[in-house]
Amino acid sequence: MAAREFGDAMILVGDQKQIEAELANLDTAGLTIEVKHASQKIVMTDKPSKVVKGKPDSSMHVGINLVKTGEADAFVTAGNTGGALAVAMLRQVGLGRIRGVKRPALGVIFPIEERPLLIDNGANADCKPEYLLQFGIMGSLYVERALGIANPRVALISNGEEEGKGSSLIKETIPLMQASGLNYIGNIEPKEFMNGAADVGVIDGFAGNLIIKTAEAIASYMNNIIKTEIKASPLTTLGGLLAKPAFKRVGARLDPDEVGGAPLLGVNGAVIVAHGRSNAYAVKQAIGQARMIVEKKVVEAIKEGLRTE
Amino acid sequence: MAAREFGDAMILVGDQKQIEAELANLDTAGLTIEVKHASQKIVMTDKPSKVVKGKPDSSMHVGINLVKTGEADAFVTAGNTGGALAVAMLRQVGLGRIRGVKRPALGVIFPIEERPLLIDNGANADCKPEYLLQFGIMGSLYVERALGIANPRVALISNGEEEGKGSSLIKETIPLMQASGLNYIGNIEPKEFMNGAADVGVIDGFAGNLIIKTAEAIASYMNNIIKTEIKASPLTTLGGLLAKPAFKRVGARLDPDEVGGAPLLGVNGAVIVAHGRSNAYAVKQAIGQARMIVEKKVVEAIKEGLRTE
Repeated sequence: MAAREFGDAMILVGDQKQIEAELANLDTAGLTIEVKHASQKIVMTDKPSKVVKGKPDSSMHVGINLVKTGEADAFVTAGNTGGALAVAMLRQVGLGRIRGVKRPALGVIFPIEERPLLIDNGANADCKPEYLLQFGIMGSLYVERALGIANPRVALISNGEEEGKGSSLIKETIPLMQASGLNYIGNIEPKEFMNGAADVGVIDGFAGNLIIKTAEAIASYMNNIIKTEIKASPLTTLGGLLAKPAFKRVGARLDPDEVGGAPLLGVNGAVIVAHGRSNAYAVKQAIGQARMIVEKKVVEAIKEGLRTE
Repeated sequence: MAAREFGDAMILVGDQKQIEAELANLDTAGLTIEVKHASQKIVMTDKPSKVVKGKPDSSMHVGINLVKTGEADAFVTAGNTGGALAVAMLRQVGLGRIRGVKRPALGVIFPIEERPLLIDNGANADCKPEYLLQFGIMGSLYVERALGIANPRVALISNGEEEGKGSSLIKETIPLMQASGLNYIGNIEPKEFMNGAADVGVIDGFAGNLIIKTAEAIASYMNNIIKTEIKASPLTTLGGLLAKPAFKRVGARLDPDEVGGAPLLGVNGAVIVAHGRSNAYAVKQAIGQARMIVEKKVVEAIKEGLRTE
């Protein structure tokens, strides 16, 4: 799908025999698809701290190395997020950080109309004010370049809009944001973020990850009880059948597959980490995202942006 | 409603004339309802730090003082949360902390089947491991006594279940939980919490408040787009009408009014802070919650529980 839609050459990394067996079932006529063998794989139960040195020929290592050597322009994975981060971040085996980046961060695009970016989504459970400032800079550059939003509105996500509210981390970050030259619009609550008040929501990776996971959990919880209650009587079942096109539209509007994956910002190359349960379409979208990072020179923009910081 | 259902004497605190004018429109025959005048009121825009000394005759001050002097058994408010906490916590004007309590905390009961308690919900944006341990102890005692759940399962809410995951705050709290004598079941993610995996979810007030606010925001966002999409065509509108009883049941299952308010645990008296947009039924439920704190001697249990810690 991606090779056809984008016209790009693809390199598939992993067990060569398995990949070739899959490719044999597909119509790949006219597409440039290469296979690179990797003898090891990082599985979901692997600890990130162990895999960097423990599985040196994993598909993560091989794939990220293709970016490092310039053989590939971007790396896309739907595997173990911690593993991908660990391999990508370490200069010895992976890409390393962009000069000046204190902590690379995972951005996640909320699958709502306005497509705001929340950063960090779990790469850094413990943060300092300077990290949050850089998340804002990197997120702003990503959104501006890759998503084409001019002068992105950057906000800190907090438990209240007033300056007196928030953790000491938030309070100490505010003056850095104000002095940053970013289009910093202040502190906002999750509700305002969900209503499109900002293009970039900055938060530490612990709370950020909990926000994403809470959003997913509530959406799935509501889905389940709506289904159960609709099926609870013949009349409401009929109503549910008639309303089905509406539910499909709701699903399409909130479809995480549409946005693809999470950009890992701050490493020295284009890396997208897609959700572990991505389907083919979601992976294609993630590849499209990775393309935009390359085409719009997001990595170069971050290098430049942090140099002038 | 509360006076009739519970048979308790009620004291209404605030502008005497306004309250008496309201009472004149109601049938209060046979009910014991007293009015206590307060010449000031803390409004939603008041800063908590300013009101404690700035509005010494606010309804918060007067009401909490009734508990302090023993004229009342419990205090219920749907006003400014920060104001209520500030007045309640300070020993000079309010109740002060229970001896040994490092930080009082707000518990919030999730309006889902299993009614788990999340603590802290915003009273403490910056936390230390010992605070989280005490939140677990206080939450466990509340749930056991006031909600009647034997041997409550206590979990830390984190961005991963593995011990290696989480912020350093979470990691440092784990050994305290393990040694606490609580029924500590480990770290869980929001999804497991929403599925009833724990009776008490312990978290710092910053992330805890963001979880609650994200949950509210997503629920309301989904509600809105479901309504919009159902109304988008005549057929789905008809389906929506037929399915209406199902949606009503969904609403009832997730109704925050049902659970009442948030118990403020760790202060020297029974205090419930209800949501600012509570309707009459929700306030009645909050009064019912406050009753249970008194009847089941939750404050005494916390005093005892922290003494033996």
